[in-house]
Amino acid sequence: MKQNKYDEPDFFDAYGRMDRSVKGLIGAGEWHVLQGMLPELQGRSVLDLGCGYGWHCLYARDQGASDIIGIDISEKMLEKAASLAEGTNIEYRRLPIEDISFPSGRFDVVMSSLAFHYVADFAAICAKVYECLKPGGTFLFSVEHPVFTAREEQSWVYGDDGEPLYWPLDNYQSEGRRVTSFLTDNVVKYHRTMTTYINSVIGAGFTLQAIAEPEPAPDKLDLPGMRDELRRPMFFIVSATKSGR
Amino acid sequence: MKQNKYDEPDFFDAYGRMDRSVKGLIGAGEWHVLQGMLPELQGRSVLDLGCGYGWHCLYARDQGASDIIGIDISEKMLEKAASLAEGTNIEYRRLPIEDISFPSGRFDVVMSSLAFHYVADFAAICAKVYECLKPGGTFLFSVEHPVFTAREEQSWVYGDDGEPLYWPLDNYQSEGRRVTSFLTDNVVKYHRTMTTYINSVIGAGFTLQAIAEPEPAPDKLDLPGMRDELRRPMFFIVSATKSGR
Repeated sequence: MKQNKYDEPDFFDAYGRMDRSVKGLIGAGEWHVLQGMLPELQGRSVLDLGCGYGWHCLYARDQGASDIIGIDISEKMLEKAASLAEGTNIEYRRLPIEDISFPSGRFDVVMSSLAFHYVADFAAICAKVYECLKPGGTFLFSVEHPVFTAREEQSWVYGDDGEPLYWPLDNYQSEGRRVTSFLTDNVVKYHRTMTTYINSVIGAGFTLQAIAEPEPAPDKLDLPGMRDELRRPMFFIVSATKSGR
Repeated sequence: MKQNKYDEPDFFDAYGRMDRSVKGLIGAGEWHVLQGMLPELQGRSVLDLGCGYGWHCLYARDQGASDIIGIDISEKMLEKAASLAEGTNIEYRRLPIEDISFPSGRFDVVMSSLAFHYVADFAAICAKVYECLKPGGTFLFSVEHPVFTAREEQSWVYGDDGEPLYWPLDNYQSEGRRVTSFLTDNVVKYHRTMTTYINSVIGAGFTLQAIAEPEPAPDKLDLPGMRDELRRPMFFIVSATKSGR
């Protein structure tokens, strides 16, 4: 059974108060890196898996993408997305990511922001994305970093003065379900290793182009707590292409 | 100035007592994974960077490699390597890894085991390896995992009962020199992120084939402390190829 946390009122409300919800992409700590890894979008067909409010779909529209489809499991998120996308031709569909089914070679770009760590079977996603991309197309996604998802606690070890001492790593090689607290309790995520992420992408047929473990943007380093983000990676981004043209 | 720790008598003696020195490859915790990622060696020309005792060169010889060159900075290691390789055509050369200079397309396989974390400029190595590989050739290397090299201490946090509580991660995004204790004090290593390792390989022109973060072999899991090796990765392996044939 796929968890649909974003449709729970408490979770939805808490999510709505996050910087990345209020401010959009500029409020997302990893956006400056993800943005730089996006291919040309002008005239391209784009699929966004786990689109949420649809900020990335709106960005694709602003960049001149020819057609854009956003997929999300949450009705509430898609209602919000629809309200933000009024007057555009962005199409939103309510669907778990795992259930997508598109014609072969349908898209130029498939992207996903911080959604795949909610999905149990990542290799199956890679196979579906490969199939629905055109030759030469790009697959770009971000997830919570494996170093961040390994322990259910997902928190620093603090010293007596309340300062973070270090990020505790444990259970790294034990892939699978983690019941975490993120905005509310009982949020199910799936931990997998860097190896599984990367080898699954390559195993599906893709050519790996680059990875990233984003640091905060230089102009945000003076915000409270932001320098701690240099101490361990929180995000992991992968860019890959389907060969041929 | 490149550090030549292996020629210091204390370090050399301590290294000689490690399982991987006494027993060879079978005493190396990551060998079962590295071995499975090696390409066919029969009839191939092989270069080993940071060859140490030369166990990997001897393995290549056993697999029928046509010619094998091992490079190491340490005179003492190469003396030992020569004594183990008597009667073979393995050629050992004393040289820092950074200083290799071979004709273009000289080798089918370039490998390196746990040596690149002693090298300051990894991108320069990737460029040299790319140049001296034949089209279709393989570049395979292991290093200490970035999660392992991030803190100079390179040790667990222990509880009152002496059991490891977790692996402390810190300074991950701060690449560069680390003065560690490994066998003796004052061993200089260079920490770099997963991103730098992978993007440097791709940036040099290689196609990434697979990565690995080896777990202990199943038949070794009951050795003392070995299950803790599942809690954080210690080794990182990359396999890549030069396109064409």
